[in-house]
Amino acid sequence: MSAPLFQRVAVLGLGLIGGSVAAAIRMQGLAGSVTAFDRSADELSKGLSLGLIDEAAESLEQAVSGADLVIIAVPVLAIGQMLPLIVEFISPAAIITDVGSVKAPVIAAARQYLPQSLSRVVPGHPIAGSEKHGVSAANGDLFQHHKVILTPVAETDGEAIEKLTVFWQTMGAEVVQMSPEHHDEVLAQTSHLPHLLAYALIDTLSQQGDSLEIFDYAAGGLRDFSRIAASDPMMWRDIYQANSGPVLTILDRYMQELLELRSMIALGRVDELAEVFGRAKGARDHFSKVLNERAERATPGDDR
Amino acid sequence: MSAPLFQRVAVLGLGLIGGSVAAAIRMQGLAGSVTAFDRSADELSKGLSLGLIDEAAESLEQAVSGADLVIIAVPVLAIGQMLPLIVEFISPAAIITDVGSVKAPVIAAARQYLPQSLSRVVPGHPIAGSEKHGVSAANGDLFQHHKVILTPVAETDGEAIEKLTVFWQTMGAEVVQMSPEHHDEVLAQTSHLPHLLAYALIDTLSQQGDSLEIFDYAAGGLRDFSRIAASDPMMWRDIYQANSGPVLTILDRYMQELLELRSMIALGRVDELAEVFGRAKGARDHFSKVLNERAERATPGDDR
Repeated sequence: MSAPLFQRVAVLGLGLIGGSVAAAIRMQGLAGSVTAFDRSADELSKGLSLGLIDEAAESLEQAVSGADLVIIAVPVLAIGQMLPLIVEFISPAAIITDVGSVKAPVIAAARQYLPQSLSRVVPGHPIAGSEKHGVSAANGDLFQHHKVILTPVAETDGEAIEKLTVFWQTMGAEVVQMSPEHHDEVLAQTSHLPHLLAYALIDTLSQQGDSLEIFDYAAGGLRDFSRIAASDPMMWRDIYQANSGPVLTILDRYMQELLELRSMIALGRVDELAEVFGRAKGARDHFSKVLNERAERATPGDDR
Repeated sequence: MSAPLFQRVAVLGLGLIGGSVAAAIRMQGLAGSVTAFDRSADELSKGLSLGLIDEAAESLEQAVSGADLVIIAVPVLAIGQMLPLIVEFISPAAIITDVGSVKAPVIAAARQYLPQSLSRVVPGHPIAGSEKHGVSAANGDLFQHHKVILTPVAETDGEAIEKLTVFWQTMGAEVVQMSPEHHDEVLAQTSHLPHLLAYALIDTLSQQGDSLEIFDYAAGGLRDFSRIAASDPMMWRDIYQANSGPVLTILDRYMQELLELRSMIALGRVDELAEVFGRAKGARDHFSKVLNERAERATPGDDR
């Protein structure tokens, strides 16, 4: 049996994603041992009793010391708060990564707090998730057939990128690299804007006369929106704060388009309306094969 | 074996819904015979060869003559064009219904063209559908565990309502009655607005730089939106024209809410943002049981 890819992995933040990473490490034999720290002792002890981790660390220091891979799996704005607390305990050779949904603030925090370790910093984002929260929902297959985006900085070692790529690929993920700026724009469009629209729709409708009745007649369209509005409010608050620039850019374009559709309806310019619908349907049909293939292979969930 | 509920049913417009009604009639033995007319000879002959109908009528006259139930299953704005063409052939005792997604224009057309037959007019709307089009996608189970909304007028016979209620219930649907105005408001909120938002999103994103790449990274949120944007553009053009008032009312409330969320993001008022998200999640969670139960029982599809 060959040696595992890592000796000791530290998972900081043992929620759905951190717990699923730990589960996948165990399933694939990717580490000699996994230690985790979470501010919730309850989540940690669940992680132990579920057999996802080998050690529940009592402090960040205990978790990080001696680890050759540190995975930060806390909400995106908490990453910057965590880095100064762990910098003095990180082994010089350790690779440091995260799973945050926005990359620019993670890299800014790394430049601020880990200037000596930038060659070992490989920010990452698995495009996978679930409406469920917490380590109890952890699933070692969560990353199978999902994309993981790595956004290394100029200083990052090729060897560190390569090792983390193998790590995620072994879990069944497809690993791609792009700049953090591009990542944040793409995710604003494909994930952050749709979630905002869904939250706004459910909130608007639930304020109408008899909101119970509206949900009672909820047709397919509303049902799809409703599912994504079930996500964790605090996590999403952080995402919009951390990615406000790209989100506002695409939101403004969207509202402009919505205003144009409104005019077409109000002024009876219905042939233009049909043209837009046909264009949207064409774009959708063009890519539906890709989408369907992925949907069939992947675990349905609240990717973010 | 008891006599079927109807002697001869005429289905005018043999697409997905008309074909599925025909299939359900046959499955449940609800009629002595089913005749259909469609302006597409191809759809009609498919309906015959699939065994959904007994007769492919060569004209509206042939289809409607002698029928004791006439089901109009054409796009909502085509209903008003069809009524003057069939009025002289309808038997005095025939019940006349439709499956349109907007009820006020159907009732206006009935008052204009069928003033002598209002006691037999029972407008209806099965809240069921599919992204697929045409009679080939017909499915006799389509209405199982779905709602059918009937919007009778003041003149409608109680006996006609009762008979049509039994008709849909036998197909497994849950039949409810409401005023046409209320129906059109509820559907604007639960179906027409969500579809408009989805069309606008897919169209906006497909105009961004590398739209192929955006769909390639499509996360859960976008995938859900994308599915409902695959619907038939001409059908939806008709729906927005026919229901412009209620759609504009709820669209304006939605855009107001989106503007408020935009301000919260732009100004960093993130705690207010989290409050809105929490309220939306609360509303969603409150009704998720209803939604999930229905989703489990019903065929997933593009309800409208």
